[in-house]
Amino acid sequence: MSAYILQNENALYYECAFSCDNALFLRISTDEAYFLTDGRYITEAVQIIKNAQVIDANRDLVKKARAIIKKARLKNIIFDPLEFSVARFDALSKNLNVNFRAQKNFSQIKRMVKTPEELKIIEIAALKGQEAFRRFAQIIQERGFGKSEQELHYEAQNAMRDGGKNKLSFSPICAINENAAKPHSLPSSKTLKKGDLLLLDAGVKYRRYCSDRTRTIEAQKSAAFDDKGTQKFKDAFRQKIYDTVLKAQEAAIKTIKIGVKASDIDKAARDVIEKAGFGKYFIHSTGHGVGLDIHELPVISPRSAALIQEGMVFTVEPGIYLPNAFGVRIEDMAAITEGKVKVLHENG
Amino acid sequence: MSAYILQNENALYYECAFSCDNALFLRISTDEAYFLTDGRYITEAVQIIKNAQVIDANRDLVKKARAIIKKARLKNIIFDPLEFSVARFDALSKNLNVNFRAQKNFSQIKRMVKTPEELKIIEIAALKGQEAFRRFAQIIQERGFGKSEQELHYEAQNAMRDGGKNKLSFSPICAINENAAKPHSLPSSKTLKKGDLLLLDAGVKYRRYCSDRTRTIEAQKSAAFDDKGTQKFKDAFRQKIYDTVLKAQEAAIKTIKIGVKASDIDKAARDVIEKAGFGKYFIHSTGHGVGLDIHELPVISPRSAALIQEGMVFTVEPGIYLPNAFGVRIEDMAAITEGKVKVLHENG
Repeated sequence: MSAYILQNENALYYECAFSCDNALFLRISTDEAYFLTDGRYITEAVQIIKNAQVIDANRDLVKKARAIIKKARLKNIIFDPLEFSVARFDALSKNLNVNFRAQKNFSQIKRMVKTPEELKIIEIAALKGQEAFRRFAQIIQERGFGKSEQELHYEAQNAMRDGGKNKLSFSPICAINENAAKPHSLPSSKTLKKGDLLLLDAGVKYRRYCSDRTRTIEAQKSAAFDDKGTQKFKDAFRQKIYDTVLKAQEAAIKTIKIGVKASDIDKAARDVIEKAGFGKYFIHSTGHGVGLDIHELPVISPRSAALIQEGMVFTVEPGIYLPNAFGVRIEDMAAITEGKVKVLHENG
Repeated sequence: MSAYILQNENALYYECAFSCDNALFLRISTDEAYFLTDGRYITEAVQIIKNAQVIDANRDLVKKARAIIKKARLKNIIFDPLEFSVARFDALSKNLNVNFRAQKNFSQIKRMVKTPEELKIIEIAALKGQEAFRRFAQIIQERGFGKSEQELHYEAQNAMRDGGKNKLSFSPICAINENAAKPHSLPSSKTLKKGDLLLLDAGVKYRRYCSDRTRTIEAQKSAAFDDKGTQKFKDAFRQKIYDTVLKAQEAAIKTIKIGVKASDIDKAARDVIEKAGFGKYFIHSTGHGVGLDIHELPVISPRSAALIQEGMVFTVEPGIYLPNAFGVRIEDMAAITEGKVKVLHENG
């Protein structure tokens, strides 16, 4: 086993079931690991961490890490160059005479294949996400019309958070008509009217694992995000775009199995949209891994060389974005479990 | 003027009144600057940015930045080694034959002295923070007792956000009794009873500038965070600790004037607490600058060499933390304006 050093909170949590905003994790060998933090977090760290020695490094974690590396007489140690700033890496490695081996996404690569236990947690996160979409649908029905995107964004956050019980996977995207044509639109003062197209992209965390889902609907008194197969749009063109995106998602999901290339899943979705004549309006990748981070590996894109394996979890989220008109995206999470693809709480 | 490159969102906003999560700002000379981003943000960037050329660098901002640096035949360019990851800095600087000069906190140093316009904005942020504390006091009075710290934390967030009108400066700290003894406590399932000590540390943003404030009170039916000078605690020891912290804050504020050392402000607070016999329980610095970031310069600590200048804004927040018992912190923001110190919306 190679020695490594980590500082990202989710990377730390993955190693030892605890994290805080000032810590370093050092694995020296299979039997020897250290969690360095300061006095504010020591009590909780000692209570929770069982597989590493917890050390109060007071104000200087880097100094303590250098001392441990020196004492262990390491020749090589892996670090993630995306994780460490230039300043911190310099302070850590200078004149230490150790080969710091840069490995991008070191922790995310370890986390790409989930255990059955992690899959269970993620499935619960998806269920809680689905429940939150239902709460938001009820808000739309009861008091959504006339509210601005900004207000709806706030309502969406509250629907997701469920009185503080859930944390957000990310700040939701809640977009009306032409704002839905921007994949990363910011909420505006534009208000919701009956018949508007409404896109919601949101997720919640359960035991720190994220869910991620997008639905696009026509806002009516009976607004509901489930089920995606029966959404109706009065405008025939909107319906056509919606049906195309849904077909693209279904085609991509059908492609998923163990051993298939991630790029082929992307291609399945892209082919449907291209054949319909909207290829240049599908301006992002088909999906991304989900776990402790909202964006993990594998990437489901035209250039992704990843091969699908048991235990992977990733989104399938094709979209068509027509500038100044509207956009449609449909997103669900797919998990590879017991050799098969399982789409997590897509309808219900 | 030295050329420089920035990527931090608040650093970008300070330069050109716009930011997004995928951008680089390059200043080549007084007259020549570039804002590089991708297609998702171009429309808004072009509308808002007046002092730099906005460029759609598509998927590769670093490549485009390198091309601009090359074309300008720069010899030196400043970057902040705290801002760039090892991986991104390598990609940016490799084989470019330009001297990248590391300057820690480059943007924060520029932002340390605020303009009168910025001071006005920060004062409004402080006012909105004060109003949010009042909303939270009302929640405590109406339905706070029996709620857990987790629920109160959620209520505090909503009180701060005021129906989505405000953004949070940071996730509030809402701690009862012994949890208030941890300066960075996480909310627990512990519930609020009458007579408990309750600490709230929270702030909101106005036009992206932060407010920051802490109050410690005894939770009673008439709970109110204003005014800090009249808070009453039934327990005489709690009252003594509270009065000591308040005296320390007042002593520190009295010390503030143009030309004084930041370390002397810290000393004024620390002396009061040490004389009362609780020196070892004041385990952090007396304050920090506030602006676009919640933690800016100057640092108000024993080792800070900063001299107080017109236009600085910083917190004054002494505290005493008695492990397993309780903690008291009192925090306000002080601004140096028209040659004098002004404490922003401390009571009301």
